[in-house]
Amino acid sequence: MSAAPVWSVDPRTGNPREQVAVEATAEEVDRAVRAAHAVRDALADRAARAAFLRAAAELLEESGAHIVEAADAETALGPARLTGELARTAAQLRSFAEVVDEGAYLDVHIDHQDGSRTPPWPDLRRYKIPLGVVAVYAASNFPLAFSVPGGDTASALAAGCPVVVKAHPDHPATSELCASVLRRAAARTGLPEDVVTLVHGFDAGVELIRHPLVSAAGFTGSVRGGRALFDAAAARPAPIPFHGELGSLNPVVVTGAAAAERAGEIGAGLGGSMTLGAGQFCTKPGFVLVPEGATGDQLLKALTETVSSTGSGVLLDHRMRDAFVAGVRERAALPDVVAPVTPGAAGEHTVSAGFLTVPAARLAAKGPHDALLEECFGPVTVIARYTSVDEIAAVLARLPGNLTATLQTATEGDDPDAARLLAALTPLAGRILVNGWPTGVAVAPAQHHGGPYPATTSTSTSVGATAIERWLRPVTYQSTPEALLPPELREDNPLGLPRRVDGRRA
Amino acid sequence: MSAAPVWSVDPRTGNPREQVAVEATAEEVDRAVRAAHAVRDALADRAARAAFLRAAAELLEESGAHIVEAADAETALGPARLTGELARTAAQLRSFAEVVDEGAYLDVHIDHQDGSRTPPWPDLRRYKIPLGVVAVYAASNFPLAFSVPGGDTASALAAGCPVVVKAHPDHPATSELCASVLRRAAARTGLPEDVVTLVHGFDAGVELIRHPLVSAAGFTGSVRGGRALFDAAAARPAPIPFHGELGSLNPVVVTGAAAAERAGEIGAGLGGSMTLGAGQFCTKPGFVLVPEGATGDQLLKALTETVSSTGSGVLLDHRMRDAFVAGVRERAALPDVVAPVTPGAAGEHTVSAGFLTVPAARLAAKGPHDALLEECFGPVTVIARYTSVDEIAAVLARLPGNLTATLQTATEGDDPDAARLLAALTPLAGRILVNGWPTGVAVAPAQHHGGPYPATTSTSTSVGATAIERWLRPVTYQSTPEALLPPELREDNPLGLPRRVDGRRA
Repeated sequence: MSAAPVWSVDPRTGNPREQVAVEATAEEVDRAVRAAHAVRDALADRAARAAFLRAAAELLEESGAHIVEAADAETALGPARLTGELARTAAQLRSFAEVVDEGAYLDVHIDHQDGSRTPPWPDLRRYKIPLGVVAVYAASNFPLAFSVPGGDTASALAAGCPVVVKAHPDHPATSELCASVLRRAAARTGLPEDVVTLVHGFDAGVELIRHPLVSAAGFTGSVRGGRALFDAAAARPAPIPFHGELGSLNPVVVTGAAAAERAGEIGAGLGGSMTLGAGQFCTKPGFVLVPEGATGDQLLKALTETVSSTGSGVLLDHRMRDAFVAGVRERAALPDVVAPVTPGAAGEHTVSAGFLTVPAARLAAKGPHDALLEECFGPVTVIARYTSVDEIAAVLARLPGNLTATLQTATEGDDPDAARLLAALTPLAGRILVNGWPTGVAVAPAQHHGGPYPATTSTSTSVGATAIERWLRPVTYQSTPEALLPPELREDNPLGLPRRVDGRRA
Repeated sequence: MSAAPVWSVDPRTGNPREQVAVEATAEEVDRAVRAAHAVRDALADRAARAAFLRAAAELLEESGAHIVEAADAETALGPARLTGELARTAAQLRSFAEVVDEGAYLDVHIDHQDGSRTPPWPDLRRYKIPLGVVAVYAASNFPLAFSVPGGDTASALAAGCPVVVKAHPDHPATSELCASVLRRAAARTGLPEDVVTLVHGFDAGVELIRHPLVSAAGFTGSVRGGRALFDAAAARPAPIPFHGELGSLNPVVVTGAAAAERAGEIGAGLGGSMTLGAGQFCTKPGFVLVPEGATGDQLLKALTETVSSTGSGVLLDHRMRDAFVAGVRERAALPDVVAPVTPGAAGEHTVSAGFLTVPAARLAAKGPHDALLEECFGPVTVIARYTSVDEIAAVLARLPGNLTATLQTATEGDDPDAARLLAALTPLAGRILVNGWPTGVAVAPAQHHGGPYPATTSTSTSVGATAIERWLRPVTYQSTPEALLPPELREDNPLGLPRRVDGRRA
C-alpha cells in the first residue's frame, strides 16, 4: 500500500493545486516524537530558546511574500489579511522570546528553613520545568497565527518543549513552508532541527495524541474534532493535559440605552465583525440580544445594509461551505425565525453573508430552537429580540461557555442595566468586552483567549504571555545543597530572576 | 427502601462503633450541590473568606480534643499523630487566609491601550475568578489534613468556591464533627452554612462528579478510585478539572559514596520513614536503590534493626489490611526476592512491618517483577540492590510518576554520581529531596505536592499556597469603563493588590 497523498486544494475552485506531502504512518509519527524527545535537552538553555524564537520571526518575515502567496492560494483568506496575520505571528514569536528572557514564567519560590512553622519548613525551592514533547493541532482558519508557527508552537518552544505539529488539511503547503522556516531558525541558532516536526494526516493526529512520549497537546478547531482528541488524551494509560479551543457563540447583549444612543453604529459594527474573514473567526459574534421595538429595528436596518453590501465569500474548504449552507438552512426553517438577509450558497464555490432573527422568548426553554445556540461557522449571526432584561438573563443562563461575551451599553450617562448584564455575562466567557467587537485578539500579557467548555477544555489561554503556563509543571527541591541546585534556584540568584522568597516578592 | 446506614468502625477490632449518618441519595447530592451553588456569591468578599478560614481554624482547635478522640477511635492513627495533624490543619486554614489577604493569587494583569503593538492592544485587564462549586473527595490516611477541613477544602474556599465534601468511609464520625465545625465557622462570620456540605456514600461520590453544577474536583486516594472519578469527570458533557492525587512509589537512590559515609544512619532513617503512620503516608519511600556490597549490607543491617523493633500496627481498615497482606505475599513470592524482615499479618487486626530485597537487574525490563514498581500501601518497602550507576538509570527509566524522589548522597566531599542521579530523578517527581526523607509535607508557598501521573492527574499541587490556583480561571475585561470594572482591576488599585502593568511588576 502506498502512502496517502496530501494535496493542497484551491477553495476558490475546489481543484487540487499540488501534492505537497504524504500522510505520516504510525511509524513516522513514532519516529517524529522520538526525535523530538531525543533533542529536548537542547532546549534547556533559555538564551538559545529566545534567540531561536527571534530567528524564527525574522525568517518568517523574510519568506513572508512566498508564505502569504501559498496561504492565499489554499485558504482564500486574501493577501491583506494574511500579511497582517504573518506580522502578528512574527510579533507573537518575539513576545515569547521576551517572556523567556524575563523569566517570571518560571514562578520561582524560595522558602528558607523555618522551625517556627507548623509543621516546620525545611529549605524548599520551586520553579517550573518543561513537560516534554508537545503535540500541536493546527487550526483551519488561521494558517499562521494558530498553526505551525502560531501561539501553541511558540509558547511550547518558549517553555522548552519540542513540538510535533499536526498540519491542518486546509493549508498543507503553507504548513510545509512554515515548518521549514522554524527548522531553519533552529539550525541557525545552533539547535537541532527536530525541535519542530510536521506531520500530515487524520490518523497521524490520532497516533500523536496516544504516543507515550507526548506530554501535552494544544488544539484549535471544532467541538467534534477537539472533543475526540480530548477524550483520547484522557483515556491514555497516563492521561496528559489537552488544551483545546473548540467552539464559541460569542454572545453580544445590546442594552436598550445602547440601542437608543447609537443603533446605526452598533448595527454596522456588528455587520463588520460577523463577516470579517467570511465569518470564520472563532471570536465571531454569533448570537446577539437586541431589544424589540424601534431602536432595535434601526439597529437591524444598519446591520442589513452592512451585510447586504458584503460581497460573497469563499470559505476555507468545500466541506465547511456545505456545512454552512446546511446549517443556516436548518436554522432558518425553525418556527418564528426570519432571515432579513438570507445567508447561504452564492455561486458554486461561494457563500453569501446573512443573519437570522428570532424572538428571545423562543430560547427560554429547551427545544428545537437550541440549534440557534450552537456555533455556525461562517458569515451568519443570530439576532434574538428581547422585551425585558429578565428575558435576557433567562436566555444567557441557557448558553454554553464562550471565548468572549460583549456588552453594548450607553457611552453617555447611566445605563441602568449595564452592571447587572455585565455580571450575567462574566460567568459565560474568558474575555468580556464593553462597547467593542470580539474579533481581533491582541497578543498581550493581560489577554485571555479561553473560556468555559466548549470554548476551551482547560482553564488556560492560547493567546498572550500566560499561554506558556500550559507546557510547564512545578518541581520543588527540598534541602538540596547549593552545588546540586539548578542556577534558577540558587541563593545568590545568578540569573537575576524575579522570585518570591519566604512568601514575599523579591 | 430505607437509606443505607453509615457506620463508624473501630479498626483495632473491626467492630462498628456507632451509626453516624446515612448515605446520600442522588436527590440529596443534587440538593447539596444546588444549595452550595446558590450561596456562591456570599463567598465573593475576600475579607469575609479570610475571616471564615481563621474562624474555622479556631473552632477546629477548640474542638480539638473531641475530634482527635473520634479520629483515633475510627482510624487507629494515635492521639499524638492526630494532634499534630489537627495543628497542621488549623495552620493550613490560616495560611490560606493569608493567601486571600495578600491577593497575589488573583494574578492581576493590566495592559493599557497601545496602538504601537502588532496587532494594537486595547485596554485589557485580567484577574482570576472562582470556578464554582468544588467537589472534595476526602482521603483515608489523613482524616483531617486531607479530608473535610483539609487542603482541598481550604484552598477551594480561599478561592471563593463553595465545597461539597464526599466523606471517606474510614472516618465518618470525624468527618461529621469537622463539617459541623466548618459550618459553624461560616455562620459565625456571617456566611451561609451551605458553603460547606458533607455527603456520605460511594454512589454519592459518583453522582457528585457528574453533577452539572460541580465545576471542579479534588481527590486524594487510590489509583483505582481516583482514575474512575477522573474518567467520569472527563466523560461529562462539559468536562471539569479533576485534581487527583492517586499513588506514588517515592523512589530513593542511595549512592555508593552515601552508603560508604553513613550506611547506619540511612538505614535507620529509612526504617523510620517507611513505617511512619504504619506505612500509610502517600509519601512513604516505597522503593530504594541500594548498592550491592559491604556498605549496602550495613545499610540493610540498620534497616533490619529499625524495622524489627517497630511494633505491629493497625491499618485504617480491614480491607487495606487484607490488601497489604496479599500484596506483600505476592511480591515476596517472586524469584530472587528475599524478605530480611517479613512484612504481613501480625494479629487478627494488625500487621507487622518489613521489607523485601531484589537484584536491580531483575527490574531492567518488563516482567512479573514490575509488581515491585507499584505502590503497596502499608509498612513495607522494596530494596533494589544495584551494581552500577547505569543500572540505577535503567531502573529509574522504568518508574511511573511520583510525588517525591530522594537522593541520598555524601555530605562531605564530592559525590561523583550525585549530579547525574539528581538529573535522572527530576523527571520522575514533583518534589526532589537530598539527604532527607519524603514523609512530612510542609505547608509553604514553595511546596509542590504533586507529580507526573499517577502521582497526580494534573500539574498542580494539593499542598501549599499555589494549591489555590486549581479553583480559579482567568477572565479579561477589554475596554471596560472604570465604573463597570471589578475593584480588583480599577486603575487606582483601591484594594492595593500586587499586579503586573504593561508587562512589568507594579
